[in-house]
Amino acid sequence: MTTTVGILGGGQLARMLALAGAPLGLRFRVLDQTADACAGQFAPLIVGDYTDRAALETFASQVEVATFDFENVPAESAAWLAERVPVFPNPRALAVAQDRLAEKTLFRELGIPVPAFAPVDTREQLEQAVARIGTPCILKTRRLGYDGKGQFRLRGADDVDAAWAALGAQAPKVGLILEGFVAFERELSVVACRTRDGAFRTWPLTENWHVDGILSASLAPARVDAAQAQTAIAHARSIAEALDYVGVFALEMFSRDGVLLANEMAPRVHNSGHWTIEGSETSQFQNHLRAVLGLPLGDTRMLGHACMLNWIGALPAAGPVLAEAGGHWHDYGKSPREGRKVGHATLRADSAAELADALARVGRALGREAQVAPVVERLRG
Amino acid sequence: MTTTVGILGGGQLARMLALAGAPLGLRFRVLDQTADACAGQFAPLIVGDYTDRAALETFASQVEVATFDFENVPAESAAWLAERVPVFPNPRALAVAQDRLAEKTLFRELGIPVPAFAPVDTREQLEQAVARIGTPCILKTRRLGYDGKGQFRLRGADDVDAAWAALGAQAPKVGLILEGFVAFERELSVVACRTRDGAFRTWPLTENWHVDGILSASLAPARVDAAQAQTAIAHARSIAEALDYVGVFALEMFSRDGVLLANEMAPRVHNSGHWTIEGSETSQFQNHLRAVLGLPLGDTRMLGHACMLNWIGALPAAGPVLAEAGGHWHDYGKSPREGRKVGHATLRADSAAELADALARVGRALGREAQVAPVVERLRG
Repeated sequence: MTTTVGILGGGQLARMLALAGAPLGLRFRVLDQTADACAGQFAPLIVGDYTDRAALETFASQVEVATFDFENVPAESAAWLAERVPVFPNPRALAVAQDRLAEKTLFRELGIPVPAFAPVDTREQLEQAVARIGTPCILKTRRLGYDGKGQFRLRGADDVDAAWAALGAQAPKVGLILEGFVAFERELSVVACRTRDGAFRTWPLTENWHVDGILSASLAPARVDAAQAQTAIAHARSIAEALDYVGVFALEMFSRDGVLLANEMAPRVHNSGHWTIEGSETSQFQNHLRAVLGLPLGDTRMLGHACMLNWIGALPAAGPVLAEAGGHWHDYGKSPREGRKVGHATLRADSAAELADALARVGRALGREAQVAPVVERLRG
Repeated sequence: MTTTVGILGGGQLARMLALAGAPLGLRFRVLDQTADACAGQFAPLIVGDYTDRAALETFASQVEVATFDFENVPAESAAWLAERVPVFPNPRALAVAQDRLAEKTLFRELGIPVPAFAPVDTREQLEQAVARIGTPCILKTRRLGYDGKGQFRLRGADDVDAAWAALGAQAPKVGLILEGFVAFERELSVVACRTRDGAFRTWPLTENWHVDGILSASLAPARVDAAQAQTAIAHARSIAEALDYVGVFALEMFSRDGVLLANEMAPRVHNSGHWTIEGSETSQFQNHLRAVLGLPLGDTRMLGHACMLNWIGALPAAGPVLAEAGGHWHDYGKSPREGRKVGHATLRADSAAELADALARVGRALGREAQVAPVVERLRG
């Protein structure tokens, strides 16, 4: 019996899911709004809007189970689909993760520390929230934001006008939330996976560096003490259980003064887990599919140390990465575009010192010293 | 610039090449005689015979470089194609490897020990060859044989009639060769890769076990002494250089009384190298593509110890393999058929003892004790 897995969204995550699922004997159908979605190079593509019932109908008729590459699929579409085929993660989990207010409220209910936050629907509420939370703080859209889009940072109370001018018009449609700015020391994420019968695993904690709101580099294992790692894993588990979550998700956190503050969750395989392809016994992509299909999870232990470098806008030369003993290249098959994630590289090494050396060589060869510098510093620090 | 790689033959090797090539940003076209060739599930398929000039024309027009999943593509088709696009390995290397007489002659010229052999075109030559080589010996077709097909074992001189009756009719078409039977202690293979500019790497030596002429299990690294491994690697290098070989190939050898006898070479990625997907830093599939494209080769070091189990005819249950920490499943997406390679599993572990334990558990759970027994014995011996 061949199982066909449907994926809503056809970007690099869907592409890597299809590549990881092929050895399991799976086939795929991908629904995406654009005909050149890069997953379509390796899996049959259905082109249509996520709200297009005819496209969803075709999609549903061709798959035995459905999942997501894209978390902003409209909740109604996910719910409609879930009446026809099993959908993992479940639409409620997706809806919570789509909404910064709902997810932060859940985190707080679960006893997970979060930055101060308040919902903002009007300009008046914004003023009250700024007064309560203090500055600096960040006004964000509740929904449809990603990679730093839909955010405005307020340095002082004087910035209320500018913030409202920037995002106020979006309040009626996607809602707004004001969050206290966290002067974090580290950004960490835990990539976790839960099965239909409640089995739960995480990969080692990952430290992340962002540039202009977009992930630039990830290092695993993160250099944190065991207690902090255990706390992060416990937070992820409590969220997964509260949502009856099935599949992979990422919980992004800030570390400040030894405390972990939950920032947001991504209800899907995650950029900060791309290193698992070569850096761990089982990748996030294969384990997501195993979870969705009700198969046993693979081992999430690391093989050494790994760093992922994101390629944004355009790919650099592959040669310096391929020339490294533990260098692995990932070209997503996309055309270049400013701010677009077009690929990544993973460097793997048996020791932290070797990884630092490899990163420094690659940084120099590609003229990307600034991108690798914080990771090299952490590894050598 | 997107590069499209053409693959002649659309079986599991082409499928795994496409999956390994996707992260390099490659696209693929596969030419196969059957519309349900399993590589077609992940790469666009052109259906046509390997001698069909119209199909070859279409194929050539859509690819920048071509390679093989199937070594018995007619030499004329490979040569025709090579006039239109770069073809790796080169057609001469392919022609030598297609012909047991040509390859054994080359091995002998290079000073590589081989079993006794003699060409056989007539019944009279068969009698003379049996008299010279002695029994037991094996009559084989020179070309188009694989997985033990096209072979007849002679236990004594009395078997000449039966051998000629079995294979004599094929002598005019594919030629025959008589080979001395080697009472080997071990079957070993070295999987090697050479680039356009002569860089050469091998994965660690692999020990193989065959059942009914078909590979059943492979273990890497093989338990051989360093001197024997160095000899095997030197043999592979001299063959690669003599043929100006580009890409991955496998050299299969018999070990007897401490001597390595070259049996045959496969001019392509090879079943005994499937463990490299999870068991080494860079898989044979990715390195084959890197070589074909003129990119630097990836590191071929092992990550621990690995055993591959072939699934022939039909797949067993995946559960016991997936439940192992280092268990990896490969379903080729084929329908079951007697004698057909439909998938494999790779078990990886940090130590030989752990690998033996995992194999024993999987063997018991699947009722495949006999398949795992020789590997477990070698690991514990």
